[in-house]
Order: sequence, then structure tokens, then C-alpha cells
Amino acid sequence: MTKPDIPRKTVYRLSIYQRCLQQLRVNHTETVSSEALAKAAGVKPSQLRKDLTHFGNFGTRGLGYNVEGLSAQLTEVLGTARLQPVILIGVGNLGSALLRYAGFNKEGFEITAAFDRDTHPRPNSPTAVLAMEEMERVIREHSVKMAIIAVPTSAAQGVVNEIVSYGIQAILNFAPTVISVPDGVWVNNVDLAVELENLSYFIQ
Amino acid sequence: MTKPDIPRKTVYRLSIYQRCLQQLRVNHTETVSSEALAKAAGVKPSQLRKDLTHFGNFGTRGLGYNVEGLSAQLTEVLGTARLQPVILIGVGNLGSALLRYAGFNKEGFEITAAFDRDTHPRPNSPTAVLAMEEMERVIREHSVKMAIIAVPTSAAQGVVNEIVSYGIQAILNFAPTVISVPDGVWVNNVDLAVELENLSYFIQ
Repeated sequence: MTKPDIPRKTVYRLSIYQRCLQQLRVNHTETVSSEALAKAAGVKPSQLRKDLTHFGNFGTRGLGYNVEGLSAQLTEVLGTARLQPVILIGVGNLGSALLRYAGFNKEGFEITAAFDRDTHPRPNSPTAVLAMEEMERVIREHSVKMAIIAVPTSAAQGVVNEIVSYGIQAILNFAPTVISVPDGVWVNNVDLAVELENLSYFIQ
Repeated sequence: MTKPDIPRKTVYRLSIYQRCLQQLRVNHTETVSSEALAKAAGVKPSQLRKDLTHFGNFGTRGLGYNVEGLSAQLTEVLGTARLQPVILIGVGNLGSALLRYAGFNKEGFEITAAFDRDTHPRPNSPTAVLAMEEMERVIREHSVKMAIIAVPTSAAQGVVNEIVSYGIQAILNFAPTVISVPDGVWVNNVDLAVELENLSYFIQ
């Protein structure tokens, strides 16, 4: 399948629709109207319909969407049909919690390996924590394209430069700093303090 | 100060500028050009200048920004001048990590209390974990306006309805589901699987 050229924000919403469809499947719902699906996702029905046309789904007027079918289509578009290997770098408080987060696997991602400067045994960790020197080997052997960064701010850019040179193309960055990457590498930032600050502005 | 009407995305960028300015202060840098600050924040200089005019900062041509002064102004605008009380609901793996995340305090947020159905003692927790029945009392006594939700999906909407009725106005939601709130209540969602899914689309 050729990747359709879909804006980043639309791709976010596709993930949200997928979330809602999965919930409907759990509840054994077979079809859903665009109004109901849009409401569950917190968007306008016109937005939902527009988003789905990006990959050629035009719905069927009056019949609603087939939950199973639309969900399968989204899985295909989002590239989560196969388990995607991911590495985690930085196994402090936040990194440990991410390792134990079952949601990743459920959504099609598998944390292949975790890396930290400190490789003391972590008896409760579901994934082995390897030395930083092992990163290159693991990334190349498993053709890993995605990494989660949960290292301290001061270490972030150095780690990013290194893994990008080994072939990492997409980074989910939890370090509270702006990292630079070459063209063709994607970064999503999750900065928890920035999220709180953002909310704080609106409740003043 | 009357709150200027700044778009949500601009407020996000203000937080990023603040991050960069704090870094400059650590490095004892006194002034910064709009070009240098924009580059550090990963935006265009024109974007930076436009964002700052929202609260009346028009800079001084040729002199750059005073780091200390601009940072103080942003702190005032973002409402992080005073330590803002926040409660955390759901102390599982992710919730525990959030409790131990030192970054919140540094950025002006204090986790006043944490709540969970399971109140077994957590010896390493920096904050007491209280029973859900205590939420109303704590929210009202401390005039808490912000909450972080890290409960399972099935519990999220019920918890949100409850805390909104006690006066919570802003929610940082980690539960992987879309929650609905009445007008005047703000929600930011941090959905880790959605972030990975989004990246996964772009590396196909």
C-alpha cells in the first residue's frame, strides 16, 4: 500500500477513532453512525467524515460504518498491523513505568530492549535492561525504527544523535527539552510539565 | 492581570520558550536574540515574535531579549508564579512514576495528595495515597483546580464526573480514552500508545 499523505493532526485523530472503535468492539457493537463515532471521539461529524476520506473511506449514507471493517482499515493505515519493535532508553522512574505499561503491546508495539547507564538487575522489570554500548547491535539486528527516550535532559541530545546514526527514524521524547534531528526523522514530545502549564494558563 | 486570550497552541509554545530560557539562565546567559531563542525552541523567529506580542512583549530591535525579564513575564502569563496544587488519581505503575517525577515541583506544581482505591502503604511514595472517599474534602479544603488522572479506562469517566462536581477545572488525562467534561473544564490528553501510533504512521 502506498502511504497516503495525511497531515499529522489527522493521524492523531485516526488513532482516537481507532480507540473508540476498539471500545465498540468490546461492547459487540456492529455498526456505528458517523454522528455517534464523532461524539465518542470528541470531534464534529464533518471532521470525522473528512478525515476518513483521506484514505478513501467515504462511508455509506444512512448505514453508518461497519465497526470491524473500519477498525481493520485504520490498523492498516496506521501501520500497527504487525508488532512494531521499539527500544526504550533511560530506565529511571518514568522509564520503569513505561516498561511496565501494558498498553503498548496491546496497541501493536513491543519493547524489544531497554537501555540505561546503570544496568543493575531490576527484578520486577518485564524487559532486560542492557548497557548503552549494546544499542547499536540491537537496533541493527532487529531493524528497530522507533525509540522512546526517558533520559535526563543533559543526556538527551547525545543519545538522540547516536541512535539516529544507527537507523532510528521516530522518537517519542519524554526528556523535558527540545531535541534536534535531521530531516526524515520524526519526534513527538511528551512533556508532562508543559501539559500542566498549559492547563494552568486556562484556569487562571 | 486580565488573562489575554491566547490560543492553546501558542500557550504550548510559551511553555517551550520558558524551558529554553531556564536553560539559558542555568548557563548564566543574560540576553538572547529572537533568532537564537527560536532555534532552541524549534520554531521560526517570526513565530516567536508573534507569540510574544500576544501579551504585549514587542522586544527591542537589535538588543535581543533579557533572559531573566522575559522568563519572569512568561511565569506570570502562564500562572506558574505560585505553586499550584494538583491532585493525582490512580496510583498504579504510571501514577507511581508521576508521583516521583521531580519535574512537576520544579515547574511550579505540587502534588497535594494522591488517591487510589487501593490504599495499601507505599513505602517509597513521596506523597500519601488516600482513599477515593477523601477526594471531595481535599479538593475543597485546598481549593484544588487541577487533577492528573491515571486510572484504568473503565474508571476514568466516573472519576472525572466526580472531581468536576467538586470544583476541578483542568484535567491531565493519562487514561487511554476520550472523556467528556462540561464547558469551562479543560482536558489535555497524554495517550502514550496514540503517540507511538502517530510516529509509526510516518516511518512506514
